[in-house]
Amino acid sequence: MNRHALLLVLAFMLSWGFAAQLQAQSAAAPKTMAEILAASKPSDWRPLDPENTLYLELPAGRVVIELVPAFAPKHVANVRALAREGYFDGLSVLRSQDNYVVQWGDPDGEDPEKQRKIKKAQRTLPAEFDRATSPDLPFTGLADGDVYAPEVGFSQGFPVARDPKARRIWLTHCYGMLGAGRDMDADSGGGTELYVVIGHAPRHLDRNVTLLGRVVQGMEILSTLGRGTGGMGFYEKAEERTPVKSVRVAADVPEATRTSLEVLRTDTPTFLALVDARRNRREEWFKSPTGHIDLCNVPIPVRARAAALP
Amino acid sequence: MNRHALLLVLAFMLSWGFAAQLQAQSAAAPKTMAEILAASKPSDWRPLDPENTLYLELPAGRVVIELVPAFAPKHVANVRALAREGYFDGLSVLRSQDNYVVQWGDPDGEDPEKQRKIKKAQRTLPAEFDRATSPDLPFTGLADGDVYAPEVGFSQGFPVARDPKARRIWLTHCYGMLGAGRDMDADSGGGTELYVVIGHAPRHLDRNVTLLGRVVQGMEILSTLGRGTGGMGFYEKAEERTPVKSVRVAADVPEATRTSLEVLRTDTPTFLALVDARRNRREEWFKSPTGHIDLCNVPIPVRARAAALP
Repeated sequence: MNRHALLLVLAFMLSWGFAAQLQAQSAAAPKTMAEILAASKPSDWRPLDPENTLYLELPAGRVVIELVPAFAPKHVANVRALAREGYFDGLSVLRSQDNYVVQWGDPDGEDPEKQRKIKKAQRTLPAEFDRATSPDLPFTGLADGDVYAPEVGFSQGFPVARDPKARRIWLTHCYGMLGAGRDMDADSGGGTELYVVIGHAPRHLDRNVTLLGRVVQGMEILSTLGRGTGGMGFYEKAEERTPVKSVRVAADVPEATRTSLEVLRTDTPTFLALVDARRNRREEWFKSPTGHIDLCNVPIPVRARAAALP
Repeated sequence: MNRHALLLVLAFMLSWGFAAQLQAQSAAAPKTMAEILAASKPSDWRPLDPENTLYLELPAGRVVIELVPAFAPKHVANVRALAREGYFDGLSVLRSQDNYVVQWGDPDGEDPEKQRKIKKAQRTLPAEFDRATSPDLPFTGLADGDVYAPEVGFSQGFPVARDPKARRIWLTHCYGMLGAGRDMDADSGGGTELYVVIGHAPRHLDRNVTLLGRVVQGMEILSTLGRGTGGMGFYEKAEERTPVKSVRVAADVPEATRTSLEVLRTDTPTFLALVDARRNRREEWFKSPTGHIDLCNVPIPVRARAAALP
């Protein structure tokens, strides 16, 4: 096995468990996730667009986030603008609620005098909870059904739900999804407070908060932060917070220090085969394959870009 | 709305644990989870049975686990026996895989010479993946549907799925559930390696591994353990593991040092009202209540026993 193939296998072992370790044992069983990824073509993958990639730099390392302007154009533009004016630099992770979310923002955000000033970006924006369906917007449906929405699937590499009658489509609160916290008013968010899902998908938040991206690397940095002991998992003492060193748009970072990743396209036969392999686990270990898969259990594989390897 | 009120409202909307204390502030909004719990009767709650309660003692504190013999009688009896002969004491948390499971057991378990010896308990047991339905076994159904099983609901305070045609019922891999790790053979588990779900419910494991309990306190101790960097989240170096100080049956611990908890009964009108309140969120913050709820998003409230309070 060459280094490239090995990295692929390792990448999915690290993220998604049993399959890789069992690959050697299951050579006779065709179409496991391991085999599908190993057989994927370069064109099955898309590099992250540096304009739509955020680096959240924490003391423990870098969290890489992909933004999705097709679903939240104003929020994505505003978070980009906030990052570019250094809004987040020196702020903190304020909240870590078990089985729910981690959230970062301004510890003094409620104090008009002490709060971090905003230069060109917006403090609040109209909600972008959902959007109209469109022939231009790809939708790869999942036939397995869903408890919360009439239809679910994937669009541009993100988990989504859709209501065909209302012709609306929206991002869903799966593990790792990035949202813009808000107060009581629907239009009180905007991106100054951002959260990431670290537990069982809180799908009741769908269409109640604007989602705008997904963590594609570094989830373990967020998910292992000590939980806050205050209400909603807020830290009770300032020293419990984790400092945000900076949030940068990848395009603004020198190429040599970028994290070069690519994501499996969700509008490809390879992705459909992968979903099927996860729905009907063919690894020898499984005794009762379910034949079904929940939207938020479908992996959207990410790997180091081949071009970036020596 | 001032900051204090806002935080309070947000807290009870978003948290599973803080509802009761916020009841006073939400008097205007009928039938929220906070109000339902505040109005619950003592008989809506059941104390943990000390014979069916395990204390996993880690350096960061105690994890309290409720065992459920009705679904895995042999595994529960064996884990109790293992705990009573001190099998787990001094072993380690070996694995922490992001969005999946934490697992503890014997680092030398694969080495017949070095592995921890077992005195009276069993090393392996026949699988207890599911069991027959029975009129004696309560089932509180959830009408919201499920991606994986024909029916889902609750039994004896645990999330379950049911196949009425096959007349089988089984525990489901929701957040916090405890399972008995196994090797390739279905009957190779037994309780010497135990895992807890720390991510989005891996329901594809249902009926593939024996579940036998649920963490009712201390999940944050397990969920924040640093992730292992080896395959499947195993730690690569011995020093990365977390030592297991001991695992004890609560009945064997002096009463003064027990953790006195009670769990909301899932076969009560109070629990049904709570499910409805979570399905149709009535808190002002919610703009688009979903009207649906996923099995693993239903909270099963746990609180300190009133009798134990001063």
